[in-house]
Amino acid sequence: MEFTAKQIADFLKGDIEGNPDVKVNNVTKIEEGKSETISFLANPKYAKYIYNTKSSIVLVNKDFQAEKNINATLIRVDNAYQSFASLLDLYVQQIEVKKGIEKFSFIDETAKSGKDIYVGAFAYIGKNVKLGDNVKIYPHTYIGDNVVIGNNTTIYSGVNIYRDCKIGAHCTIHSGAIIGADGFGFAPKAHDDYKKIQQIGNVIIEDSVEIGSNTTIDRATMGSTIIKHGVKLDNLIQIGHNVIIGQHTVMAAQTGISGSTKIGKDCMIGGQVGMAGHLTIGNEVKIGAQTGIGSSIKDGEILLGSPAINIRDYQRSYIFFKRLPQMNNKINELEKEIAELKEKITPA
Amino acid sequence: MEFTAKQIADFLKGDIEGNPDVKVNNVTKIEEGKSETISFLANPKYAKYIYNTKSSIVLVNKDFQAEKNINATLIRVDNAYQSFASLLDLYVQQIEVKKGIEKFSFIDETAKSGKDIYVGAFAYIGKNVKLGDNVKIYPHTYIGDNVVIGNNTTIYSGVNIYRDCKIGAHCTIHSGAIIGADGFGFAPKAHDDYKKIQQIGNVIIEDSVEIGSNTTIDRATMGSTIIKHGVKLDNLIQIGHNVIIGQHTVMAAQTGISGSTKIGKDCMIGGQVGMAGHLTIGNEVKIGAQTGIGSSIKDGEILLGSPAINIRDYQRSYIFFKRLPQMNNKINELEKEIAELKEKITPA
Amino acid sequence: MEFTAKQIADFLKGDIEGNPDVKVNNVTKIEEGKSETISFLANPKYAKYIYNTKSSIVLVNKDFQAEKNINATLIRVDNAYQSFASLLDLYVQQIEVKKGIEKFSFIDETAKSGKDIYVGAFAYIGKNVKLGDNVKIYPHTYIGDNVVIGNNTTIYSGVNIYRDCKIGAHCTIHSGAIIGADGFGFAPKAHDDYKKIQQIGNVIIEDSVEIGSNTTIDRATMGSTIIKHGVKLDNLIQIGHNVIIGQHTVMAAQTGISGSTKIGKDCMIGGQVGMAGHLTIGNEVKIGAQTGIGSSIKDGEILLGSPAINIRDYQRSYIFFKRLPQMNNKINELEKEIAELKEKITPA
Repeated sequence: MEFTAKQIADFLKGDIEGNPDVKVNNVTKIEEGKSETISFLANPKYAKYIYNTKSSIVLVNKDFQAEKNINATLIRVDNAYQSFASLLDLYVQQIEVKKGIEKFSFIDETAKSGKDIYVGAFAYIGKNVKLGDNVKIYPHTYIGDNVVIGNNTTIYSGVNIYRDCKIGAHCTIHSGAIIGADGFGFAPKAHDDYKKIQQIGNVIIEDSVEIGSNTTIDRATMGSTIIKHGVKLDNLIQIGHNVIIGQHTVMAAQTGISGSTKIGKDCMIGGQVGMAGHLTIGNEVKIGAQTGIGSSIKDGEILLGSPAINIRDYQRSYIFFKRLPQMNNKINELEKEIAELKEKITPA
Repeated sequence: MEFTAKQIADFLKGDIEGNPDVKVNNVTKIEEGKSETISFLANPKYAKYIYNTKSSIVLVNKDFQAEKNINATLIRVDNAYQSFASLLDLYVQQIEVKKGIEKFSFIDETAKSGKDIYVGAFAYIGKNVKLGDNVKIYPHTYIGDNVVIGNNTTIYSGVNIYRDCKIGAHCTIHSGAIIGADGFGFAPKAHDDYKKIQQIGNVIIEDSVEIGSNTTIDRATMGSTIIKHGVKLDNLIQIGHNVIIGQHTVMAAQTGISGSTKIGKDCMIGGQVGMAGHLTIGNEVKIGAQTGIGSSIKDGEILLGSPAINIRDYQRSYIFFKRLPQMNNKINELEKEIAELKEKITPA
Repeated sequence: MEFTAKQIADFLKGDIEGNPDVKVNNVTKIEEGKSETISFLANPKYAKYIYNTKSSIVLVNKDFQAEKNINATLIRVDNAYQSFASLLDLYVQQIEVKKGIEKFSFIDETAKSGKDIYVGAFAYIGKNVKLGDNVKIYPHTYIGDNVVIGNNTTIYSGVNIYRDCKIGAHCTIHSGAIIGADGFGFAPKAHDDYKKIQQIGNVIIEDSVEIGSNTTIDRATMGSTIIKHGVKLDNLIQIGHNVIIGQHTVMAAQTGISGSTKIGKDCMIGGQVGMAGHLTIGNEVKIGAQTGIGSSIKDGEILLGSPAINIRDYQRSYIFFKRLPQMNNKINELEKEIAELKEKITPA
């Protein structure tokens, strides 16, 4: 693909400064710019790179003021970062054109699908599955019986979705994610043995959710594990049975949520965080990496540590944790001094 | 499926109070009860829900005493929770009826199998594999050469079992689990390079083991990594080479056990726990979430922290960790007061 | 397979003491030796086992001096451990003889490959893929469009490699690893919603890299995520977008590296470590298990704790963390004593 500055400016409704006919065929960061590529400048910290970048075109904000001569052709737009993101969308749409049914795919005769779907080789579509319009199922993905998948959802290769789960529209699920495996439910029996409690619920994933590689979301014991609208989960995350994650909450890699915990909306949860089961986490909660959450959390709290406390308290305490040997020395010195004082005061 | 209260009472050997002809077609929690479903009441904390539940039938313990009028039909049994679990077993058996060999499956001609097996599409059964009676191999599962799988074991879609491993009877292995990949063994070479040490052992999984989604169990360098009878492993767990896990030990998600560590029986290990290699962990040990185990542990210990200490000691220390800034202030005050005292005692 | 002591000694250029015709058909640890197997003795701590081992042959260092009678035939070599590792290599080469194209594999007509490759059943080779000589692609592995794989690389079953990634020569990638899924990139939008930032870069894996089961390595937003020569990654590791890992760095299981962090060469990183994004980690850095890295690290540092500090400082502080209740008691006692002293000095 190749575009001129004019074509891009027309698409973005931007204004050109420089050569409208210069062509680009790829995108780069401004600090790593190359000829025939387009970059963007949004963060003023990176402004210094624009004077030397080798990018042929740079997207800038309308109010950007150059302090020196610039070789690149500029395209001025309202929001350079958002415009650049739109260009990336366009770019990806043009290289990702998977369509049709590849050979060696298994589609049960009772399955139904909308228009313009892609089903890759070795994909498995079970009984009574419903695929919406423009759904893409990459190779080696397993869609269990009765699963429903909404319009415009992409499921990459090697995903496993157990029976009865529901996936919304505009979702992206990455390779190796497991949706709807059994929750970890066992009841103690005699002789220290355990009896498996059958997990007969499902997983419901609402619209515009993205799920990272090798993330696991267990089905509910009864009822549903629910991932609400706009949630973004990174890789290798564990979501236990009957968990509910509120809308637009984001979660970094390797975090684990134990069974039946409910998380509010608009939370930001760092990597390698662990949460115990049966908790209620409020809205707009922020949790630092590696934090351990053992009790319910109110709206808007910002937490760190294992077990978690307020982030500033943790940081303050940690400063003194590092000084503990010196604190201990001081206590020992004070003890000695007190003993000396005592001796002086209490004559033998 | 639909059952009457009478049919269920007969199956469970329970006594009916109410309409024996009322029908149910699903199960629910008592607090989320719906018409035409059956619930159970075992934990007295939930007793308040029985008077308003919309469930058509509720299983209760024989000694349950109602304090108010109840609309639902009751079935009295010795142990309502266990009876409910039996009903779930029955329910699952009826919806999971996978049998036979689906098209596009690959079964090496030297493989042998018992009766009533299921081999899904795109399943791969290698050379000299032996599958017991009633084994279910879901789609996209890879069974390497010489693997043996016992009777009544279910392996869900997308599992990978490397050559020479042995899986017992009545096991359940969830999607994405990797059994028998190489242990992490490298010997330093000149020039900071590493030489791979071939991992020629295997993994032995005994009977009645459940393994969660995307859990990885490495093969032994030599000999066997062994998961003993009745062990339950949650999702995304890492088991290193030559580890042995004792019978009926349970382990929550995202825990990692380094190579050659031996864990006793009846242990309960929380999520995101890490253990160093070459340790010996006793029987009936309990380990809290996110704990780091760096040395061997005696029978019956209960541990928390990184590095781990006795759970009560950790909790007590953590109380003072949170108060460290105040402790430090107090030390500084005491220092000041001692200086003042000194001045008073030692005249200038 | 079966070999005589003489055949093995010839292969290893070693000297035989004992019966040159004794035969072995397997390898064992010296402490678990069995008849017709070969063991080795390198670590003096294990010397006591050589006098009673049932192994038929033991490899020993040239300078080993027996203190008692030994039943086994000895083969003396310069370095018993390295010689044993060579024997394991030989052993594995003989049992792993996968070659050719199995039925039900999908190879796009535009893909190109070198000689002596193995493509297992249900493997998927996308458009314009290039496979080097002696490459082995096990069943259920997905190789996306335009991927290049170097000579002598083995990719086990169920691996997913997204389009445009490059894998070097002599690499080993274990089952369930995901190479090149989207990095976790979202820009805040109005109404607390997020806009996905397309990830259009790739992953470059250089030569002699080993990647463990279910490890995930995300593609770069733009440019490349790079795993350099000789890096060894254990299982269930998360590598974020645009991360660079320097040559010969090794990383234990369940560690996570956030986006854009650069790690130097020859580092040793323990299990369950977490690193924030956009950091620079020096060369020859050592990081203990479960450590949390929140800032850049200089060459050669050895770190522990969350947040990380020098390992000795952490260990020293942790000693006093465990004694915090006693430290607090002492402070309270000192306070009391000072109050008493004050009373004595300052008469009422």
